[in-house]
Amino acid sequence: MSINKVSILKSVDQNTFEGLKGYTSLAVIVDENTKRDCYPIVKDLLPEHLLIEVVSGEENKNLQTCQHIWHELTNAGFDRKAAVLDLGGGVIGDMGGFCASTYKRGVDFWQMPTTLLSQVDASVGGKLGIDFGKLKNHIGVFRIPDMVLVYPEFIKTLPQNELRSGFAEVIKHCLIADADHWKTVSAKPLTEQDLTTIIPHSINIKDGVVTSDPTEKGLRKILNYGHTIGHAIESYLLDIPGRKLLHGEAIAIGMIAEAYLSVKFTGLKEEELKEIQEYILSVYGKVEILESDLEHLYAYLLQDKKNSGKKLSFSLLSKIGDCTFDQFIEWNEIEEAIRYYIAL
Amino acid sequence: MSINKVSILKSVDQNTFEGLKGYTSLAVIVDENTKRDCYPIVKDLLPEHLLIEVVSGEENKNLQTCQHIWHELTNAGFDRKAAVLDLGGGVIGDMGGFCASTYKRGVDFWQMPTTLLSQVDASVGGKLGIDFGKLKNHIGVFRIPDMVLVYPEFIKTLPQNELRSGFAEVIKHCLIADADHWKTVSAKPLTEQDLTTIIPHSINIKDGVVTSDPTEKGLRKILNYGHTIGHAIESYLLDIPGRKLLHGEAIAIGMIAEAYLSVKFTGLKEEELKEIQEYILSVYGKVEILESDLEHLYAYLLQDKKNSGKKLSFSLLSKIGDCTFDQFIEWNEIEEAIRYYIAL
Repeated sequence: MSINKVSILKSVDQNTFEGLKGYTSLAVIVDENTKRDCYPIVKDLLPEHLLIEVVSGEENKNLQTCQHIWHELTNAGFDRKAAVLDLGGGVIGDMGGFCASTYKRGVDFWQMPTTLLSQVDASVGGKLGIDFGKLKNHIGVFRIPDMVLVYPEFIKTLPQNELRSGFAEVIKHCLIADADHWKTVSAKPLTEQDLTTIIPHSINIKDGVVTSDPTEKGLRKILNYGHTIGHAIESYLLDIPGRKLLHGEAIAIGMIAEAYLSVKFTGLKEEELKEIQEYILSVYGKVEILESDLEHLYAYLLQDKKNSGKKLSFSLLSKIGDCTFDQFIEWNEIEEAIRYYIAL
Repeated sequence: MSINKVSILKSVDQNTFEGLKGYTSLAVIVDENTKRDCYPIVKDLLPEHLLIEVVSGEENKNLQTCQHIWHELTNAGFDRKAAVLDLGGGVIGDMGGFCASTYKRGVDFWQMPTTLLSQVDASVGGKLGIDFGKLKNHIGVFRIPDMVLVYPEFIKTLPQNELRSGFAEVIKHCLIADADHWKTVSAKPLTEQDLTTIIPHSINIKDGVVTSDPTEKGLRKILNYGHTIGHAIESYLLDIPGRKLLHGEAIAIGMIAEAYLSVKFTGLKEEELKEIQEYILSVYGKVEILESDLEHLYAYLLQDKKNSGKKLSFSLLSKIGDCTFDQFIEWNEIEEAIRYYIAL
């Protein structure tokens, strides 16, 4: 049985938010984008609520914005039997969920993810938190949302680059757990993908993994494939003018570099690496990473939450559709893998 | 079976901290008082560790101090398999536990409470958090410490007023759950109490209540006796020059006012109220509360975490040794109870 309560919606109507009626108060957290594109679709279906608006963007997923949210809940007199609905992408979900989980030691919260990335990834599994300085998700908690409502229609409001960012997690889910689905997906460009199929498929894979290991003691680590190097790149480029990447764009690079490591350490075939790299480059193109970036990336890698002591922990592919975890790799090997990407 | 892992120590030696040796790193959080009085007693028995010092006092139990702690852990490269030992009173325990529970989504933490108050109350039960503005414990989580080491010897380093503050929770535990023990305790002044008996007794009562209801859905609420009014008084007086009260001093007032409400609403006998009030006044004396304080107290009461909607929730005595919860009382009645205390 799944620990995640996920409902995939073909439409939204009077019954969609029935479960929110029993709370003493309700807050809906949005950013300027979801306020414009998504909130109008659900506004009249929701029980009476307080609308809390935050500014979009990973750079605002911090303690300062949390304080704004906690202040709004406090000023409106929200008690422990209140609830929060996060209407947005990963930033709103992670941060709104963290704020709800810590307000008066925790009130219920629902996630209504509005991006492909958050629908197939962030909303499932209960990882909540905020960035701290430049460290991603450095402060947070594990807590499963009381409900996750996935409405694929929202995806239509997304800019193309956001859609592409989320698609990286779809690719990852195929690579770590479903070789057949990888064949289907990798046969088509992003524009021709069938979202109504790939969204539930991706959620299913993540749900299965997370349910078997909610707090990432073991198997759940396979979801980190592409993320050790990807996160370091994402964090480092976050506030370098003109070089900022979306999450999935960074993970795409990470998946190629970590596929290279997989060939070296866990038995992925050379031709599988080529297949992965060709498809990813066809969707994401090539991002310029410089020699001089390497030392900075090393500093970020050392802060990775998955490390144990001084060892750098990776989840690597043994073949397409199968992933191992707890692979501890030295920096010189990692450097070589990033240089492999640079040289493509 | 208890959910709390509590060990009451007759002495400290090489084996006391054996369980801390398996972690990748260890941080010990102290304030200037516990650094002077308690840390020297355990320093050489502890594995290699990072000492993190914070400034003592409820006024520093806030997000700013948390950021200091998170920064120290981050700068020292602590990973997810690191641990934190909180060596101090309730402030260090609540805040250090909260920081540990949210650092990289949670590392293990041990509590080593150094005050009577934290030994018999704060360290048991997993309520963690910080104040937010003037609101006590407004941001936090529930998480049971991985170990609580109670060393009654530490109490000897306490100033008398701190000892008296902690004693209020001992009184409370008797009043809500053990009429016989109340007779024993209330027959003697504080200076003649046998701490080696009352500390384990108090921990036992709290442990039993918390184990049956960890997240305060029901029975655990009886631990709030004296705390609804007491917390409001404590919060309000916190930064009024010359009027600040220690936690137990405020709870002592709350227990008298709420015993008054208990006579009115839950069947406590008039003579039991007198008995409670006489003993508490003999230990704590009378604190001046002004007519003009009442409206401020009302504002604080409305922010109480225990409220549901606009109702003010109380735990009240049905007799000495027995407590009820979910008693919803109107402000005019509460005002009358505080006036009763004022007029004593």
